[in-house]
Amino acid sequence: MGSIEGERTTVGWAARDPSGILSPYTFNLRNTGPDDVYIKVHYCGICHSDLHQIKNDLGMSNYPMVPGHEVVGEVIEVGSNVTKFKVGEVVGAGLIVGSCRNCRACKSDIQQYCGKKIWNYNDVYTDGKPTQGGFAETMIVDQYFVVKIPEGMSPEQVAPLLCAGVTVYSPLSHFGLRESGLRGGILGLGGVGHMGVKIAKAMGHHVTVISSSEKKKKEAMEDLGADDYVVSSDETQMQKIADSLDYIIDTVPVGHPLEPYLSLLKIDGKLILMGVINTPLQFVSPMVMLGRKTITGSFIGSIKETEEMLEFWKEKGLSSMIEMVKMDYINKAIERLEKNDVRYRFVVDVAGSKLDDQ
Amino acid sequence: MGSIEGERTTVGWAARDPSGILSPYTFNLRNTGPDDVYIKVHYCGICHSDLHQIKNDLGMSNYPMVPGHEVVGEVIEVGSNVTKFKVGEVVGAGLIVGSCRNCRACKSDIQQYCGKKIWNYNDVYTDGKPTQGGFAETMIVDQYFVVKIPEGMSPEQVAPLLCAGVTVYSPLSHFGLRESGLRGGILGLGGVGHMGVKIAKAMGHHVTVISSSEKKKKEAMEDLGADDYVVSSDETQMQKIADSLDYIIDTVPVGHPLEPYLSLLKIDGKLILMGVINTPLQFVSPMVMLGRKTITGSFIGSIKETEEMLEFWKEKGLSSMIEMVKMDYINKAIERLEKNDVRYRFVVDVAGSKLDDQ
Repeated sequence: MGSIEGERTTVGWAARDPSGILSPYTFNLRNTGPDDVYIKVHYCGICHSDLHQIKNDLGMSNYPMVPGHEVVGEVIEVGSNVTKFKVGEVVGAGLIVGSCRNCRACKSDIQQYCGKKIWNYNDVYTDGKPTQGGFAETMIVDQYFVVKIPEGMSPEQVAPLLCAGVTVYSPLSHFGLRESGLRGGILGLGGVGHMGVKIAKAMGHHVTVISSSEKKKKEAMEDLGADDYVVSSDETQMQKIADSLDYIIDTVPVGHPLEPYLSLLKIDGKLILMGVINTPLQFVSPMVMLGRKTITGSFIGSIKETEEMLEFWKEKGLSSMIEMVKMDYINKAIERLEKNDVRYRFVVDVAGSKLDDQ
Repeated sequence: MGSIEGERTTVGWAARDPSGILSPYTFNLRNTGPDDVYIKVHYCGICHSDLHQIKNDLGMSNYPMVPGHEVVGEVIEVGSNVTKFKVGEVVGAGLIVGSCRNCRACKSDIQQYCGKKIWNYNDVYTDGKPTQGGFAETMIVDQYFVVKIPEGMSPEQVAPLLCAGVTVYSPLSHFGLRESGLRGGILGLGGVGHMGVKIAKAMGHHVTVISSSEKKKKEAMEDLGADDYVVSSDETQMQKIADSLDYIIDTVPVGHPLEPYLSLLKIDGKLILMGVINTPLQFVSPMVMLGRKTITGSFIGSIKETEEMLEFWKEKGLSSMIEMVKMDYINKAIERLEKNDVRYRFVVDVAGSKLDDQ
């Protein structure tokens, strides 16, 4: 970690162009400001949205780009105003590293919906410099957007909670779906879907995994503890659970018809979209009107919800299912993630990897 | 009113085929059963969904069909179990005349969502006979589906409340949108839309009418008391109210893009569909996810909500804007309704019309 005027350098792995291939990249970090927490990154999960970003799928990517937003690390320095964190503590950081702190969303503690939120990478920070993510030796984050990891939690297990976990926890909590005994559907069994099964089961729900094939049935039922498993193309199976679900967490990240899933919902049931999909989704209005059903969506979760979820996770003694890799495997991991070939989240052992190529 | 074994006859106006042209039609009504209320129809509103039914737009029409589901009339006979109504009282009946009374919806007092609900026309009653609607001299309705019209309310004014009125009142009430000070949008200014403005204003909301042209601006602002008026094709006007509305009541009965309207909603805002549209509606998922917005819909309202709404309407001293016609004008009225050429609801003076053609 060298130091130049007002800044220091760190090394991460960055994509340089829409090929999305990551390679070592040395870049500047601001020095620790009064409200900043300087973090040595230990682990960082790979999320499906990292793929979209590095490959410019949404047409808004700037390079070089260091992705990664499921960051767990250790505090190595704190600013003068920082009282919540101490050097040596284990902390987490997620997708949002800034917001206006003044709008209705910020004042309601849902800063993830602030119109001026700052993404932890592929964005511009308040100092005009690009933000860079967690596949790097160190990060610097405003204390407001840092969460404490409760003692006793294993840090590599926690990484996927900071995006995938809170992405599921937040809507269940917000839409009044925490109550025990509810019947939930988890559509798609990837990184977010597996968190969905874990969290919904821990809330005491009856959980049905809905998937495009039989392939994941055994693991869904045996490894993750789902109560039921339905293949979406099998009309008999789908018909059997018609009008039975209080909610569906829809994690499918590509275009798909909504009507087959709306028909699984009870009256007042909720279809909660989690996938950023750039092709239009369709439905016919009587499908929602005649059961007062809801199509909605949710975007990660707030700092407060992240803290709540970490406590919930610890209290329930849950564990995530991850595959730990070193940084030099990251391009292969991304290739495999694209094919959905991971059970269920890659976590990069950043601190245990050689980051620079010298 | 003649009488044959177990039944009697009445005369109404029926469509005979998908031309939808109504003409006099004499048909049988069951005799008054223990739970029945026998009603002499005074007034009946014409709703846009009557058009769909008589013209077989949904492909489920049976003929002859007497439409009409905004019925106000006078009790002329009650069954032995009927204690809630007395001969001579003014009562109303709407779209639903039967339900299972045993499912979750029925037990939760939202019988409009019962899977076994019986429509007041173009359906089959528990006795196996076709149901027929309110453009008829008399009707017979189970007391459970009859509402009392509060004293002092003018019956022709009440007719449109029984469908259009409660259709707006129910979702505002159910989705927690009754609070004074909310900002609402009413998309489309037909029969339901005009009720929307009246009811939302009476709840103390700031109401913006969103319409496809300037045509109805003066009447929306001056006659109905809307606070603002926006032409949906005018991007500058639309941009001005972006992210500002707590809800939109979407009454458009034909296919239309949802995204321009989703963008008008605040975080947690609700787009509430009221139009039975048989072509798919579209949106992209980030439009709902990034503001936790909701697309939902609602179908008329419950008997309880209808009673509540009538009290609300009376308490607030509201009036609907209707054009009263005689039965011999009904085909012309339907033609005009199809062109949206009515301010804002036709009500047929059934009792004051010559119904048979003898």
